[in-house]
Amino acid sequence: MNEHPTTPIITLTTDFGLKDSYVASLKGVILGIHPHARIVDITHLISPHNIVEAAFTLMCTYPYFPEGTIHVAVIDPGVGSHRKAICVTGDNRIFLGPDNGVLWLCSQRLSNFSTYQIDNHALFTASPSYTFHGRDIFAPVAAHLALGMRAQELGGPVARIQSLNLPQPIVNNDAIEGTVLHIDSFGNILTNIHRSHLAHFDTDQRQYIIHIGQITFTGISQTYAEQRMGETFALFSSSDFLEIATRERSVAALLGAHIGQAVVLKRSIRNG
Amino acid sequence: MNEHPTTPIITLTTDFGLKDSYVASLKGVILGIHPHARIVDITHLISPHNIVEAAFTLMCTYPYFPEGTIHVAVIDPGVGSHRKAICVTGDNRIFLGPDNGVLWLCSQRLSNFSTYQIDNHALFTASPSYTFHGRDIFAPVAAHLALGMRAQELGGPVARIQSLNLPQPIVNNDAIEGTVLHIDSFGNILTNIHRSHLAHFDTDQRQYIIHIGQITFTGISQTYAEQRMGETFALFSSSDFLEIATRERSVAALLGAHIGQAVVLKRSIRNG
Amino acid sequence: MNEHPTTPIITLTTDFGLKDSYVASLKGVILGIHPHARIVDITHLISPHNIVEAAFTLMCTYPYFPEGTIHVAVIDPGVGSHRKAICVTGDNRIFLGPDNGVLWLCSQRLSNFSTYQIDNHALFTASPSYTFHGRDIFAPVAAHLALGMRAQELGGPVARIQSLNLPQPIVNNDAIEGTVLHIDSFGNILTNIHRSHLAHFDTDQRQYIIHIGQITFTGISQTYAEQRMGETFALFSSSDFLEIATRERSVAALLGAHIGQAVVLKRSIRNG
Repeated sequence: MNEHPTTPIITLTTDFGLKDSYVASLKGVILGIHPHARIVDITHLISPHNIVEAAFTLMCTYPYFPEGTIHVAVIDPGVGSHRKAICVTGDNRIFLGPDNGVLWLCSQRLSNFSTYQIDNHALFTASPSYTFHGRDIFAPVAAHLALGMRAQELGGPVARIQSLNLPQPIVNNDAIEGTVLHIDSFGNILTNIHRSHLAHFDTDQRQYIIHIGQITFTGISQTYAEQRMGETFALFSSSDFLEIATRERSVAALLGAHIGQAVVLKRSIRNG
Repeated sequence: MNEHPTTPIITLTTDFGLKDSYVASLKGVILGIHPHARIVDITHLISPHNIVEAAFTLMCTYPYFPEGTIHVAVIDPGVGSHRKAICVTGDNRIFLGPDNGVLWLCSQRLSNFSTYQIDNHALFTASPSYTFHGRDIFAPVAAHLALGMRAQELGGPVARIQSLNLPQPIVNNDAIEGTVLHIDSFGNILTNIHRSHLAHFDTDQRQYIIHIGQITFTGISQTYAEQRMGETFALFSSSDFLEIATRERSVAALLGAHIGQAVVLKRSIRNG
Repeated sequence: MNEHPTTPIITLTTDFGLKDSYVASLKGVILGIHPHARIVDITHLISPHNIVEAAFTLMCTYPYFPEGTIHVAVIDPGVGSHRKAICVTGDNRIFLGPDNGVLWLCSQRLSNFSTYQIDNHALFTASPSYTFHGRDIFAPVAAHLALGMRAQELGGPVARIQSLNLPQPIVNNDAIEGTVLHIDSFGNILTNIHRSHLAHFDTDQRQYIIHIGQITFTGISQTYAEQRMGETFALFSSSDFLEIATRERSVAALLGAHIGQAVVLKRSIRNG
């Protein structure tokens, strides 16, 4: 087993797809600077230019990586414009990406964070292109950070990063009106209703009534396996968002669900 | 070159797809426990919940990995139920997965094997979820095995693992009635007729007649390249199953082939 | 950080897809011979048997990998025929593949190169198959080269490698008639018009007129971001080929573009 200190992991989240040469170009640049870099793909199948999808995916994933990991997110429709390139750091994690909101959800999950602009041109590839900062700026900067450079050496502090204007659930006295945030490859539906939104209700999880599209059902379960095959049910996902699923079926296909669709959670009123 | 001993490879076979954060979560957990783990993806595009497809893919792949490799298969529709999590070990290979048949074809290919239940909760992530044992149980257990833990430390022995009820070829005096087992991304058709099924025939390979769908052809070839373009032919795949192919075409598309379709191999009767 | 010398990177470019076991088999064979090999996927989604697409993808990617990297390209419709397996080496890079043109574009970009036939059977897997030289020949040879073997030890020199018969732009006095070479996953169109084809024109980039399909527009830009959303424009890609794009849209879908389609670049004639 290796005794020497371990180099940080670099993760990649992009909308580059898996057919073109773009992802490999980033990896080549990183390995040219840091031959022992450990690179892990989060996904390269973010829908083109979909900043929210990338922000959500990275927010759900980064906590499972060890401290010290460097997360690179390149969803960059504004490449070559005046949008800043930034480095967000907190809780012993580092995030690199354009300042277009893609790092915002992660920053909100950190107990505290600092942001630095990436404008130390000495770190970039020679004559960086106007069209591919993933390869020419973010990849070499990630490699230098993995070699031990500190975030402060990338550029000056940034006071405020770009946020995302996401739909927030409306929390009433007896109900939460949320929306569909994400549909995964199993067809499971993730909503923007978080476990913490239910905290003040003090209601047994089995007493909730859930409405989505044309269907209504009762109760929030703990597992997939306690359900009958083909029955639609709700549970809290491993990221603590309310998830709607059907055992061994795509509930999204069954319901014709789509991102942005309304989901309503009501407390059942006893004696009424 | 590294002088120190090499850590085992961990392979991953799942139905998680490549768009979501699930695969990366497993890798983050593994690397958090074992920073030098060498992780290789077999595939994450198993059809959702398709245990047979995963079992077949892993059986075809594991022999090409060196001894000591740890193979993790997470196709787990019964997650959270009473299905066991198991470790199968034999021929200096280790396999981890749910006890739902996904490891059965591999176990049958080993010269002998032992099975242990995975119930050493000290190895799991803190408060494992009910819905994602890939990340919370199989990933950390694989990392601990790669660090040197023995299979016996995972839990007690298991007498009998779940088998798969696969269609078996019917071997007659002059014919073998088989079925289509798999169609690969080139459109080549793999059948469940194994080279060993022909052993007692003592017939020249060029003397067989093969029927599938509306077509009939003669002979089992040795290579793709000895065929004319566009001609359908049979050969034994590198896994020793009878394969039907058309050079530089998808024979499955040409024939409208599907999994489970009948394939018949007959000895040609000379002087008849 | 590791102090010992770094093993070369091995990259893989294939048409094997990501669903089957083929890619993992190559990796297993490589890691069985060279446990510390660093393997990077370029892509496995080359269209089946599309030698030109693979040649173009590898030519665009290899310059971003460090010197010493070993690039393996397995698009091999002629596997098992008399086509040679070759090793091309130059500019401190190594390329392995069948001699069917897949390595030709890379060889033309090297300042000079040598070619060796791969016929040292001692390096191959035991009893190599007739149908899968990627796993049985190219993978083990790449691993041996990464361990330090020299290209000359693979086999005798090859005088001339297979070229590709690609459409070349027609360069007139006032115009260049090119074609669409590639469409990437964003829908950007790459043409076969190279920056060097414009060298003798001595015209301001803003003075060119570009025709493709039903549309005509003026000027070659430097960045995506200087464009208005939805407007079609041209720029030179990071590989120095003329690219046609629409900001945050798929221009290929908008225009119904296809590979081989005509693209004409004209000098605008001032004063009439």
